[in-house]
Amino acid sequence: MTLLYEGKAKQLFTTENENELRLQYKNDATAFNGVKHDIVEGKGRLNNEISALFFPLLEEAGIPTHFIKRLSETEQLVTPTTIIPLEVVVRNIAAGSLAKRLGWEEGIELQRSIVEFYYKDDALGDPLVTEEHIALLEAATVEQLEEMKRLALLTNKTLLSICESANLLLVDFKLEFGMTKDCELILADEVSPDTCRFWDRDTLQKLDKDLYRFELGSLTAGYETILERIGGVVHG
Amino acid sequence: MTLLYEGKAKQLFTTENENELRLQYKNDATAFNGVKHDIVEGKGRLNNEISALFFPLLEEAGIPTHFIKRLSETEQLVTPTTIIPLEVVVRNIAAGSLAKRLGWEEGIELQRSIVEFYYKDDALGDPLVTEEHIALLEAATVEQLEEMKRLALLTNKTLLSICESANLLLVDFKLEFGMTKDCELILADEVSPDTCRFWDRDTLQKLDKDLYRFELGSLTAGYETILERIGGVVHG
Repeated sequence: MTLLYEGKAKQLFTTENENELRLQYKNDATAFNGVKHDIVEGKGRLNNEISALFFPLLEEAGIPTHFIKRLSETEQLVTPTTIIPLEVVVRNIAAGSLAKRLGWEEGIELQRSIVEFYYKDDALGDPLVTEEHIALLEAATVEQLEEMKRLALLTNKTLLSICESANLLLVDFKLEFGMTKDCELILADEVSPDTCRFWDRDTLQKLDKDLYRFELGSLTAGYETILERIGGVVHG
Repeated sequence: MTLLYEGKAKQLFTTENENELRLQYKNDATAFNGVKHDIVEGKGRLNNEISALFFPLLEEAGIPTHFIKRLSETEQLVTPTTIIPLEVVVRNIAAGSLAKRLGWEEGIELQRSIVEFYYKDDALGDPLVTEEHIALLEAATVEQLEEMKRLALLTNKTLLSICESANLLLVDFKLEFGMTKDCELILADEVSPDTCRFWDRDTLQKLDKDLYRFELGSLTAGYETILERIGGVVHG
């Protein structure tokens, strides 16, 4: 089994079936474009479990995803894709770089959800890009952009509904899309507290990677809360 | 005559006529959001003369502007407007923040001209904003955005033609628009080597504020070249 790709938080391996890859969630926690880096025991398992719960719910809502099935505590089987080099961010509440960019206080509810694109390039610090920049970069076609926006907003609608039932606020989240060998655009990467900001709806307590970024408390305690609230089983 | 507004490079005064303001070009040169600041003798006059040549040519091309007439070496009469808090940037060749954002070398010709918007806020460092950010900020309406894009591209077409005759490359430029009391959107601010990147078409020598930003040579010598090439009279 060949290692095809190693990212900050996951490894991707071939399997005996060319239509399936094995995605291994790692315990590495990173922030600020890799400047901060630690190993957090249990993180890989939590993100794998949480992603493995979210993906089927997104599929049910009509969003094609790369998820095939959960394989083990830290692994899932996924469809191979060529990743479009854009981070697609949906925001419902001001936080992170949006709060900084607009000079808004964290926590301000946006009048409407917005979609942003960031160019996936660590050396450039994943800069915000407009649709015209994307055209210059040839990072995606106009049709791919429109489809990513549509699927990102549908993902938002679906996650917002799950979060409401789980007494969570969905502040914002980052998606990545890929093209299958049949030229279908599908949701790839992961959907987890590494890539979504989740706050407790009552206390506004952060339950996502901001716990690690800003050293606000136990990452695994936050992630376990998410897993539990969306119906997962918190081990050990 | 009351001072209505003082910017980094200009002062705006009332006149006896409420439909006319006096715009005074200063000798202040600033860069990097005001971090670098010097007084450059002759700069105010050069920018006033250059702007006073460009604005009528833009008017002829169908772009409404705030320019009424040149009053003196450093002053012009303009129509009062409420400035829309966006910098509208048109780019033909990669330079400045675009080159940095996309990781492109300066000088690469863009496959097509692009329009960018930056939110005018010194404290935030004038960040790039998308149309969705602009809607959240209520900085401009959708109609204003469309009209600014149309006028910015028409300005580009007009300036490109002037530059070709003047043996100049028009790399990029920044515009500001304002609303008159009759709710007409018009081009305001200035059109000068402070706000446009001009390169010599043969030698690619910079003839604009980058001379000052990066200490590449005499600012006034560059600005005098521009003034001369577009048909102005270089004094002294």
